[in-house]
This record gives sequence, structure tokens and C-alpha cells, in this order.
Amino acid sequence: MPANKKMLVLPGDGIGPEVMREVRRVVDWMDRRRHVTFDIEEGLVGGAAIDAEGHPCPDSTMEKAQRTDAILFGSVGGPKWDRLPFENRPELGILRLRKDLGLFANLRPAIVWSPLAQASSLKADLVDGLDLMIVRESTGGIYFGEPRGIETMANGMRRGFDTESYTEEEIARVARVGFELARKRSNRLTSVEKANVMQSGRFWREIVTQVHKAEFADVELSHMYADNCAMQLASRPKQFDVILASNLFGDVLSDLAAAVTGSLGMLPSATLGAPDADGRRHALYEPIHGSAPDIAGKGIANPCAQILSFAMLLRWSFGMEEDARLVENAVEKVLAGGLRTADIMVPGAARVGTSVMGEAVVRELDK
Amino acid sequence: MPANKKMLVLPGDGIGPEVMREVRRVVDWMDRRRHVTFDIEEGLVGGAAIDAEGHPCPDSTMEKAQRTDAILFGSVGGPKWDRLPFENRPELGILRLRKDLGLFANLRPAIVWSPLAQASSLKADLVDGLDLMIVRESTGGIYFGEPRGIETMANGMRRGFDTESYTEEEIARVARVGFELARKRSNRLTSVEKANVMQSGRFWREIVTQVHKAEFADVELSHMYADNCAMQLASRPKQFDVILASNLFGDVLSDLAAAVTGSLGMLPSATLGAPDADGRRHALYEPIHGSAPDIAGKGIANPCAQILSFAMLLRWSFGMEEDARLVENAVEKVLAGGLRTADIMVPGAARVGTSVMGEAVVRELDK
Ligand SMILES: CC(C)[C@H](C(=O)O)[C@@H](O)C(=O)O
Ligand SMILES: CC(C)[C@H](C(=O)O)[C@@H](O)C(=O)O
Repeated sequence: MPANKKMLVLPGDGIGPEVMREVRRVVDWMDRRRHVTFDIEEGLVGGAAIDAEGHPCPDSTMEKAQRTDAILFGSVGGPKWDRLPFENRPELGILRLRKDLGLFANLRPAIVWSPLAQASSLKADLVDGLDLMIVRESTGGIYFGEPRGIETMANGMRRGFDTESYTEEEIARVARVGFELARKRSNRLTSVEKANVMQSGRFWREIVTQVHKAEFADVELSHMYADNCAMQLASRPKQFDVILASNLFGDVLSDLAAAVTGSLGMLPSATLGAPDADGRRHALYEPIHGSAPDIAGKGIANPCAQILSFAMLLRWSFGMEEDARLVENAVEKVLAGGLRTADIMVPGAARVGTSVMGEAVVRELDK
Repeated sequence: MPANKKMLVLPGDGIGPEVMREVRRVVDWMDRRRHVTFDIEEGLVGGAAIDAEGHPCPDSTMEKAQRTDAILFGSVGGPKWDRLPFENRPELGILRLRKDLGLFANLRPAIVWSPLAQASSLKADLVDGLDLMIVRESTGGIYFGEPRGIETMANGMRRGFDTESYTEEEIARVARVGFELARKRSNRLTSVEKANVMQSGRFWREIVTQVHKAEFADVELSHMYADNCAMQLASRPKQFDVILASNLFGDVLSDLAAAVTGSLGMLPSATLGAPDADGRRHALYEPIHGSAPDIAGKGIANPCAQILSFAMLLRWSFGMEEDARLVENAVEKVLAGGLRTADIMVPGAARVGTSVMGEAVVRELDK
């Protein structure tokens, strides 16, 4: 029997706790049927942590995060904490986790399962079978660059400013994650920047080209400006395999790609750190949807993105490819069977709540 | 008879010159039928200017630009100039014009004419009748912020960096353009930033809120993060009236909005400076499509965006609202009549080339 796997669960706010409950069913199933036991700790993050400990990501949570094998994150934020000062908002919870754990590679799949192709705002044939992966740099760029601030200048006028900055090492390591992924997929990578107006964009293109030439010449590499990439995602998304982008462009483009799928409630993500000498790496998994305060507590949220985030965790943190596939296939079969939560409802399908959806996934796994 | 109106025509590269030729037909019509004569100068810009004078926007062009009433710009760039150094690419032509003429407010309409709703990648009902306006700041932000560069740091590692910076004056003046426009439309403005991660974004929100409160409290103002705005544009674009954004977010979001319409070949834009004491302002009008080197010289490019850019010029630089509408209506009627260039072709329509399309617009004007 394999050693227990440590997992830190951070449900957060809004619908976070209720969709996380459905993951527990899958975890129990793993224990029962696959003889894989997880050693689960819970922690506070976001508004829940602000309320309890005065910080969106308190040291108590960071300590647990440092010693766990993998973090399963829910979602944070809500109207209750909207008027807090910049230095103390729920979002800082996720930013601190990314930065302090060195989670530099944010993997954001945009997938359209055939039964859901109708849910997209795009014509179904343009998205049916879509399967692209955005690799977003997530500890650098304008999110963390210094200097930054709001200041009064010598002439008495105020200004706000930020710094976009990328070192060659920061670009190269995330590019490697992108190229490795492309190799396991259709072997194509599109690197995105604004090399026509930004110096960091020029530099990004230079380093990606260099890494490509030296280590991944077999992968088909193309470069695209961010504005054009947004256009292409909205019009012909299936042209892409892996998209590589900075923190800021990756933020906008990955949300755009998610919207294009039409089913935000279905999309997971992984954010990975660098492997240490023993091959262990910090990693965090979270649905891309937010805390959806408007529907929290109603039992109608879609738990699939959180369950699929757990599948990514099995794959990336524990190398359990087979189990990850089992979970993903179970979700797909439940959809094909016609069950739908409200967010992905279509005429003729059976509308169900959060826990019926979770139970259906486990029943499918049991088959 | 009104005094002659000065207009500087900069055809640029690729399809620029051939679509500009169709505008000349409309200009002639104005002279013949509306008794409005334009005093037209021509100038070099982009690759054409690099070839002739060694700079994408030579001083000879800047001098003409300084003394004209309005600039009609084509498009720049092409494979021939793709490998030029950063400091000498065709794109710098447009960047210099914006910066040196103080053209800080880039107006980018995204409109879907009913006959073209099918051309969108989005389902027709989601875009039919779409009419939104993006007001993009265009002389500030990360496009021009200092310091910027690629440098070797003390530890021997290289980095690329840029500065995003906005003063209160820069934000306030473009916000005013947005609010004024909203008042003439549906009275709603959505201001876009990443106030949750960027200091310049927090400051942007603060100043927009302040201008709103002091001068435009009657306009409905909302704030949206850039990633969410990208999502919303791809899924429910008709929710927007006026969108206000920084140079960088505006670049990406306006191209996204254009792609959502499905007919890039139809969309014009205007970029305006501040009015001087006599109410005169520098202004530049250009189609949002590029120079399309792949189809240049084939006589198949869609001239409508260039013609509609001229209509914007009539409206914004000469206050000729009625004439602007005449031109816009003529284009719409030609579409309704079933003529289509290749880029907007649909089954059942009549496919025509650049000049037949231009002639049809003038014939419609003649009616
Ligand atoms: C919550 C916010 C800080 C965050 C970001 O901008 O990175 C979010 O949009 C995301 O993509 O995870
Ligand atoms: C050509 C390029 C510099 C330009 C920009 O990024 O502003 C273009 O994309 C635009 O939107 O006009």
C-alpha cells in the first residue's frame, strides 16, 4: 500500500466550501475502491481567513501549505470584503500562495466536451472538441514588479505606476513547462506578447526563441501579439494547442478562452512550482470560476470544476494518470447522460443541484 | 461655400493604398453633390516611408500632420519590414503620430450590422445589433512609460522591463471623452482595469470615480476587471455601451470586440487629441484592420472600414454629422442589397472586389 498522500484543502468563500464537499466524495471513493488514502488538512483562506485571523492568507495557512504535497483551493471573495483596503483583500490569499510557494506555472486548460458545445456563445462547430492549454507565468511580471505605487510627483500631480519585469530565468522556466506540455499534446506552442511595443515583450520573444532552439526544436513554435491572440481565441479557438503568456496577458487570455468554452463551471487549473532535487514540487489546484456569492449556500453550484481540479492534482502531484482519467471520464459520462447544473443547463437535460451532481460522478466511478 | 477642409491622406502599406482609392470616390462625391471640397495632401508612413526616407514616420510626414485638419490613415507593415530593428519598424509610424500629436483618445466602435450578424463566430442573436464603443487611452501607459529596456543586472542575469504609468490628468481627460460619449449614447460607461493587482489600476479607478462624481454623476458608471471584461465581451457583448480602458487593455479588448463582430473589414476608428483654445484638435482616422499583405494588390480587399473611417472624420473633425450618416447609411444599404467582399462573403450574396464595392457605395449616395 502506498504511503499516505498529503493534501491541504482550502475551501475559501462563497460556493468554495459546498463544491469542495463533493470532492470529498471522490476522495472517499479513492480510499474505498483504489486503496489510495489522502491525509487531509484543512486551512483558511480569503474572506474566511480575514474574518478568523485578520489576513487573507495567514501564516498558519502558509505553514500548512509549506509542508503539504498538494493544495486543493476553492475560491475567495465576496461583497462582505469588497471594501477592505488593497493590502487586505481576499484575492491576496491566492497571490501570496503563488508567490511564497514559487508557483510560477499556471496551467489553464480550455476544453469543450461535446455534450456542452451548445453552451458556448460561439457557434457549436467552432468549439466542439476544443482542447487547448494556456500556460501562464504566475509569480512575475506586472503582478509583483517593483517599483509600484501611487505617488505625488515633483510638480504636485499624482500618478499610479507598476513595473512589468521578466528575467531570462523566469521566462525560460515557464517556457520549458509550455514546451514539455506541447510535446505531450499536438507539439505546437504559441508564445504571446506585445514585442512590437513592450521591451519585456521583445525580451520574452528572444528568450522563448532561444529555449526553443536549444532544447525543443522539435516543437512547432509561433509568436503572436496579445491583441491578435484575443481575436483568434474569439473567432477560431481550435487553431491553438499550447499558448504561453506572461502573468497579465495570461490572466486575460485564459479567462477569455474559458468564456469561449461556455462552461466556466467545468474548468479546473493547476499552478506548479519548480521540482526540488527529489522531484517534489509545490502545486495548487483550483477551479477557474470564482466564489459566486450570488448563488452560495443554495446548493445549485456546479462541482465539476472543483472535482476536475482534484483530477489534475492526481495527475500532476502524484503521477496518478490512470486515476485522473477515471475521474475525468466519470464527469464526462455524467454530462453525456444528461445531468446538468443550472449554469450549463440546456433544454431537455435534467437539472440537478450540487450534491446530486457529485453523487452521480461517484456512481459513475463505481461502475 | 465653406472654406476648404484640409485632410492628410497616409495610405501606408499592403491594402492601404487600394482601399484609400475608394475613399477618393466618396470625397469626389462630396465635392460634386454636397459642395464640400477637401484640400488633400498625401504623405508617407510605415514601410513605404522606411523605403523612401528611412523612417516609418519621417519629419516630412510629421510636418504635414501638424498643419492638417484631419489625418486619414491606411495601414502599415508587411513581411518586407518584419526583420527590421525594434527602433525602425512600420508600427512606429502610428505610435509616433499618436504620441507627437497628443492623440490620447482612441475611439473604437464595435458594430454589427444586421445583414452581417451571421459573419460572427458568436451566435447571431448574441451580436445582432451590437453597438458598443471602446474608448482606449492611446498616448500613455506601458506603451510609452519610462524606464523601459533590456538590461544586464548586477548578478549578471538579463531582464526586460517596462513601466505602466498614468497621471491623474491622463486618466481624467480620457475618462471625460468616455463620459461625454456615453451621454450621447445609452448613458452607461464601464471602466476597465486590474485594480485588484495593479497600483495604476487602483489609481485609474480612483480618478474615474472622482471625475464621474464631480462632472458626470448622471452617467451610469461601473467598474470591471480586464479579465472579466474579456469574458463578458466573448459571451454577452450586448451588455456594454461605452468601455473605457488603458492603452494596453484597450488594445486587447478593442481587438477582441472587433473579432466578436465577425467583420473586421467593416470597422473604423478615430484617435483624437485635446481641443485647443479655438476648438481645433488633431485627429487621425484609420480602419482597425491591418495591411493584409497576403491579399494586397489583388483588388479583393474590403474598402468599407476605410470609407467608414472617413465618415468618422466628417463627424469628429468637421462636425458634419449629416454627411457622416449619409456615408454610413450608404454602406449599410449596399450590404443590405447583398454585395459582399470576400472577407464577409456568405452563401447567396454577390461577391465583389474592392472597386465594385466602392462604386456601389457612391451609387447609393447618388440616390
Ligand atoms: C483573483 C485575481 C488576483 C486573480 C488574478 O488576476 O491572477 C484571478 O483573476 C486569477 O486569474 O486567478
Ligand atoms: C500596431 C500596434 C503598435 C498597435 C498597438 O498595439 O497599439 C495596433 O495593435 C493598434 O491597436 O493600433
